[in-house]
Amino acid sequence: MITSIAQSPLFPIANPKSIAFFGASNNYAAMGSSILTTILTDGFEGSIYPVHPKEKTVLNLTAYADVSDLPEIPDMAFIVLPTKIVVQTLKACGERGIRHAVIVSAGFNEVGGEGIDLQKQLQQIADHYQIRFTGPNCIGVVNSHLRLNATFLPSKGKQGFIGMASQSGSFITQMFSFLDDRYGQGFSTGFSLGNEANIDMVDCIEYLGACPNTRVIGLYIESIRQGQKFIEMARRVSLVKPIVAFYAGGSETGRKACLSHTGSLSGPDHLYDGVFKQSGIIRAHSIEELFDFCYTLGSSPLPRGNRLIVQTHSGGPGAAAADACERTGLELPQLSSETLEKLAPFIPHTGSANNPIDLTYTKNPLDFFHGIPEVLLEEEGADGMLIYFLASAKMVRTALTGMGVPKEEIDTQIKNIIDAQCSAIASLVTTHGKPIVGFSFLTRENDFIAGLQDRGVPVLPSPERAARAFGAMVDYTRLRNKLTQQKV
Amino acid sequence: MITSIAQSPLFPIANPKSIAFFGASNNYAAMGSSILTTILTDGFEGSIYPVHPKEKTVLNLTAYADVSDLPEIPDMAFIVLPTKIVVQTLKACGERGIRHAVIVSAGFNEVGGEGIDLQKQLQQIADHYQIRFTGPNCIGVVNSHLRLNATFLPSKGKQGFIGMASQSGSFITQMFSFLDDRYGQGFSTGFSLGNEANIDMVDCIEYLGACPNTRVIGLYIESIRQGQKFIEMARRVSLVKPIVAFYAGGSETGRKACLSHTGSLSGPDHLYDGVFKQSGIIRAHSIEELFDFCYTLGSSPLPRGNRLIVQTHSGGPGAAAADACERTGLELPQLSSETLEKLAPFIPHTGSANNPIDLTYTKNPLDFFHGIPEVLLEEEGADGMLIYFLASAKMVRTALTGMGVPKEEIDTQIKNIIDAQCSAIASLVTTHGKPIVGFSFLTRENDFIAGLQDRGVPVLPSPERAARAFGAMVDYTRLRNKLTQQKV
Repeated sequence: MITSIAQSPLFPIANPKSIAFFGASNNYAAMGSSILTTILTDGFEGSIYPVHPKEKTVLNLTAYADVSDLPEIPDMAFIVLPTKIVVQTLKACGERGIRHAVIVSAGFNEVGGEGIDLQKQLQQIADHYQIRFTGPNCIGVVNSHLRLNATFLPSKGKQGFIGMASQSGSFITQMFSFLDDRYGQGFSTGFSLGNEANIDMVDCIEYLGACPNTRVIGLYIESIRQGQKFIEMARRVSLVKPIVAFYAGGSETGRKACLSHTGSLSGPDHLYDGVFKQSGIIRAHSIEELFDFCYTLGSSPLPRGNRLIVQTHSGGPGAAAADACERTGLELPQLSSETLEKLAPFIPHTGSANNPIDLTYTKNPLDFFHGIPEVLLEEEGADGMLIYFLASAKMVRTALTGMGVPKEEIDTQIKNIIDAQCSAIASLVTTHGKPIVGFSFLTRENDFIAGLQDRGVPVLPSPERAARAFGAMVDYTRLRNKLTQQKV
Repeated sequence: MITSIAQSPLFPIANPKSIAFFGASNNYAAMGSSILTTILTDGFEGSIYPVHPKEKTVLNLTAYADVSDLPEIPDMAFIVLPTKIVVQTLKACGERGIRHAVIVSAGFNEVGGEGIDLQKQLQQIADHYQIRFTGPNCIGVVNSHLRLNATFLPSKGKQGFIGMASQSGSFITQMFSFLDDRYGQGFSTGFSLGNEANIDMVDCIEYLGACPNTRVIGLYIESIRQGQKFIEMARRVSLVKPIVAFYAGGSETGRKACLSHTGSLSGPDHLYDGVFKQSGIIRAHSIEELFDFCYTLGSSPLPRGNRLIVQTHSGGPGAAAADACERTGLELPQLSSETLEKLAPFIPHTGSANNPIDLTYTKNPLDFFHGIPEVLLEEEGADGMLIYFLASAKMVRTALTGMGVPKEEIDTQIKNIIDAQCSAIASLVTTHGKPIVGFSFLTRENDFIAGLQDRGVPVLPSPERAARAFGAMVDYTRLRNKLTQQKV
């Protein structure tokens, strides 16, 4: 396993100083133009050399008629050309001394027939010139920390901690909004793999394992091509950071769809369950879960075990969370008498100190964000918490208005209150080293939710998803402990 | 079963012309004040008579020192008083001739001890004066079509089609934003049941079954108190409109949480599974699913069977949808040769006419919204469709800019394009009578998603949730057919 991303064949692809771009023109509707537009608007600062047989400039960049005309040997070639001229282009790149490429063009193995032969030719050329490439039939590459977004949809520039390797480009380029809207997150680095004719998922796991901006690795899998290598690499990387995988080919119908999509041969569920277990990989059972798990695992300290306390203002969401916890294999222990004693002053007569701790209301709202969770995190019989967040800026506004706070001071006071409460929760996580996973039916449009998430406290959109994400952390702790013991 | 909501004891509670309000003051922090504020800001147009021993006005409304002073007998009393004076207040209401009430105050059966006795006293007074009431320990009542929101959080005023009866008030008042943000929906009418000392869930199902604004009924259940009555009522209503239930007490941990919350005795999962099946109720397994199912069932024509076609631009989301369909018991049939022939002109060489139909791209974007789904809805071997929506206003803007459309025309053109495309899909559903369920990782902030949803095409936030919502429609069709046959 590499110790630095610079040793990886993916390094020049994810961190290029210069790119030769094939397939962009001044026709905005073309896929190549669309990708180059994204690269430019997202703010990549390296050199880009469009190669175009006729145009003098492409999207206001100086264009070159032939790769041999380029003023330097670029770190990588980015190819979005019609299928029939991809092979000759890769060859020309090899002649020019280019050693890394991303091939977006489709029409290879995934369409069968002649495509299979064309893909073989790509591989032969790559071997001959020692070129390493991703694709063909991929969507590009993203490195948010370098502001490199070589895909056809603009990102929101969020520099995140989720490293992604995907056998569908959609789960890179179409997830920018999704990650930002739900979690205020983004990809650290994202690789779209396409047909994996040269670089494959094992290379990506190795790269992301060493990537300092990546705290957790997400995989979208339709088929694992090199089972043994995959398991060995994932086991090693899992010791360092969590890997979460979604597998789409487990059912008969899913398998057929994967075959149509990337020409890959998937295997049955139980086989992949075994592979994931051996690899120390957490399996997600939906796309939402894949990112819920990545987000939570990347945000939080790990729980030592599966015992947690649910804190809520509202009985229903508390009960739904409790029910979901048991279904996820989590335990809700009773509080020790010491904790109960410390908690008593905070609990009104309508509340309950059973677990879930249902306050029903708190006279001082800061108690909900500081005093109460502090007592609960000190409980030795618990490994972490779920907290239901209901507070909204609108409620604070109503309260302040009612208290007669002057209108011109209200916005500042709301901001201060939200800052104080969100910071209180975040610092409790740091000082106690136990995870708090929030859940709320509100979104990031609510400043409380954004405030918590932006301070590193994961907040998920339902009790069930919060419970399952907590469960994923417990699973990872167990898997890692097991792998560590086996290693020793 | 009633034939008109006017026959229900809940009618004056959900449709009051006048309310006696107990427990509001000029102290904004009090729960009663908070609820009365919501009633006023949400725009209720009936008469409100605050009753307060000292204040002359409450929140700018004329207040009355005693219920006997009111200028008329109001349709209902709304009580948010300290526990110890609730009994005497209900009695005074009875004396005054008030026959309906909502009791928000807590401290009854759910706290045990003296609370149990107090609740019995409420019941005796109600019996004596023939008062029907919801609660105690409930959160209020909502009728969006009357702009009545008697809960402590303001709604967004959305007049929706989901009728809700909930044993947790949170799933009424805290779901306004949730329903609006996700689906552009709201409650038609929402009842918070609390301890069900008088009116219970069976009454609510009956009311909502007859409610003309309610297309689908959602239930949050911690415990069913009158099993046989519940089953009989739900069976009858299920013939008319779908009922979806989430049950929180199925696990040991969930059961304990429900006991703390409302003092209710829940039963094991398998028992409730049986009750739901006998009742023709669709069971949801998470809060998100409860509302996904309600939203989809209320939006769409029902599928005749479980065979569907998945249409996508993107292989990965298509494969994930296909996989989820099989896991949900749905079938993806191969297309007939007739359909394949009609479809051929629309499919580029990189695309696939296997099911999922993966276009990869379409030269004319309107094809994706009209030409292609029209052909697919005509396929006799399929009962409906899932469609993946990726288009965003931003992409249309980029395309139009690229085509040289003048800046000042772009906004109008975008609006026209979105209108045309969303309307095209919506009218196909109407003309073909088959359901289309969309899925997208984008939210309603994207005008395409809002445009589809606002035209009645359900769009869900992931392939798995779309598949499961389609599955819920299939389940309801089957359950209803079975109940109809048994009835005959």
